Amino acid sequence: MTDTEAPLQKPALRGAGIREVARQAGVSIATVSRVFNDAEAVSSDTRERVVALASSLGYEPSPLGRNLVRGRSYLIGLIVPNVSFPLYGAMIHGIEDVLGSHGMSVLLASSHDAAATEVRAAQNILRHAVDGGIVINSMVGLALPTQRQSGWVHVTPEPPGLPCRVELDNEEGGRLAAMELLRNRHRHFAYVGAKGRESADRERGFAEVLRDAGFDYRRFEGDYSEASGMQAGAALLDGPLDAVFAAGDLMAAGVMRALHMRGVQVPGQVAVVGFDDAAIASLLYPRLTSIRQPGYLMGAAAAQLSLNFIRGRPTEPVIFSPELVARESTGPPSA
Amino acid sequence: MTDTEAPLQKPALRGAGIREVARQAGVSIATVSRVFNDAEAVSSDTRERVVALASSLGYEPSPLGRNLVRGRSYLIGLIVPNVSFPLYGAMIHGIEDVLGSHGMSVLLASSHDAAATEVRAAQNILRHAVDGGIVINSMVGLALPTQRQSGWVHVTPEPPGLPCRVELDNEEGGRLAAMELLRNRHRHFAYVGAKGRESADRERGFAEVLRDAGFDYRRFEGDYSEASGMQAGAALLDGPLDAVFAAGDLMAAGVMRALHMRGVQVPGQVAVVGFDDAAIASLLYPRLTSIRQPGYLMGAAAAQLSLNFIRGRPTEPVIFSPELVARESTGPPSA
Repeated sequence: MTDTEAPLQKPALRGAGIREVARQAGVSIATVSRVFNDAEAVSSDTRERVVALASSLGYEPSPLGRNLVRGRSYLIGLIVPNVSFPLYGAMIHGIEDVLGSHGMSVLLASSHDAAATEVRAAQNILRHAVDGGIVINSMVGLALPTQRQSGWVHVTPEPPGLPCRVELDNEEGGRLAAMELLRNRHRHFAYVGAKGRESADRERGFAEVLRDAGFDYRRFEGDYSEASGMQAGAALLDGPLDAVFAAGDLMAAGVMRALHMRGVQVPGQVAVVGFDDAAIASLLYPRLTSIRQPGYLMGAAAAQLSLNFIRGRPTEPVIFSPELVARESTGPPSA
Repeated sequence: MTDTEAPLQKPALRGAGIREVARQAGVSIATVSRVFNDAEAVSSDTRERVVALASSLGYEPSPLGRNLVRGRSYLIGLIVPNVSFPLYGAMIHGIEDVLGSHGMSVLLASSHDAAATEVRAAQNILRHAVDGGIVINSMVGLALPTQRQSGWVHVTPEPPGLPCRVELDNEEGGRLAAMELLRNRHRHFAYVGAKGRESADRERGFAEVLRDAGFDYRRFEGDYSEASGMQAGAALLDGPLDAVFAAGDLMAAGVMRALHMRGVQVPGQVAVVGFDDAAIASLLYPRLTSIRQPGYLMGAAAAQLSLNFIRGRPTEPVIFSPELVARESTGPPSA
């Protein structure tokens, strides 16, 4: 863009009146500054005289200057892969609510699932002297740029061992999915997973419960997209199938579409369970049974960890339990 | 929360070394500050000596202080009703991309569709001395708190007359929907709308094209929710019906669910067109034909308007044209 070269118009300086306030009050500029930054070192007489004069002269202290004096920016950086992903929206909501109640604001940057963009986002955030930072599903983990003042709280399944993190018990999510499908007396199971630790953990829990009940399952590796779910649905119909657990709601939507297109009834002939409980889960037809990640609470916990970090308090990892949300896509097989 | 009372740990002062740098370099503190704020008033000898000393003493200039000197925060406030709504996600993406390419960052706050929350969000944003602000679908319009430094760019259909805004040609969207349905030789039309100027504009365009073709339509007022779309679908089936235009994708999803539940084929018996082209549109079964709002481009334009405002350049309203995205929910009636 050519206008990157145009100089930004310098806004009217807010502090322009500070000299005049100091002169008329007969005090130094530093004293006026102290009055507006709650320093106790100013006598109450002086304070009252300065405040009255400032008010009559229309002097407004600069917020940036105030933050500088306090050594704080009241900003928490937040790096999100993509604000549009519904689970992240819920997390952002929780983060904003907790930070807002402590007078802090969110400096947002999206990484768009690219490591280089994530690193640039972190550098950019650090330029604003944030008091702390939160990163959702980091691609670079401990290699994220940092500063003495600010630590990163990770909302993430990996890498393990991050000191300051919020995560979901994914194995438990897999167990919940298997129990829902066993409850409905299915016998021919399939797992639609993806690369990475989250899917591996979900599968481990799923496999454990099925094994204990004496069942095996077939597996298909997708990539969390609806298209890969459609491929999975088509491929799995080559064998006996009456119950599918997909590691993400989009893949579950794809599985259901593949079944619809072949005239297979859900849940009458094949039951489907998704994961995340994103907004789309309840909009699909039939409405999708899913394993809910408590996004709002996970965001709120991340914000609280960030505040604890700033205050020098303990920042133990917080592990959340998922929850089964049973809807129309699971049920007993039709006779 | 009880820990609101706990004092925030004061981070190590970055500027702690400035006195030492000044003393060893034999210059004033103000000179050291000028060196790190690109002032030209420092001789190159002095500049080199100060930079070398600062580096050897590990002195880091404070970003907040630098911003204060420049009179800019490099922050643009952004108020969004709800980050989870897919259209807003696309807008945020466009905003971030344009601002990021100009070295500016986004200070985010959600209004959750409540006027009081929106006003608090604006006050909070202004406390950070933002250079400008963008508000999506404002509930308070021109009554939003402002400051000399920052103006608000509105991405919004109302109130009309806002000086600095980005909006969609909603009437054109209604025309596109009517043309798509007429093309498929439907005869019994319905409009599912909602309160507000956006829906009224969409309906006006829809009605105009139908009238010119010699057709009337029935109408149902919903509230943009899926539930109200389901009510609409059920109610409209009481009369002859083969084509529905809903003012939002969620309402269209509800209409389709009501039709599915009654065994009505889409599009064979009833064609459905939604509005926004949110992510769910292409996940529904059948995939929903919708009128796309170019969210990314609208966000990018809002960011550009905000930069223009900061630079004192003209900030004419930018009106975007919607686009028909034809998918599986429209087509000719089955014989």
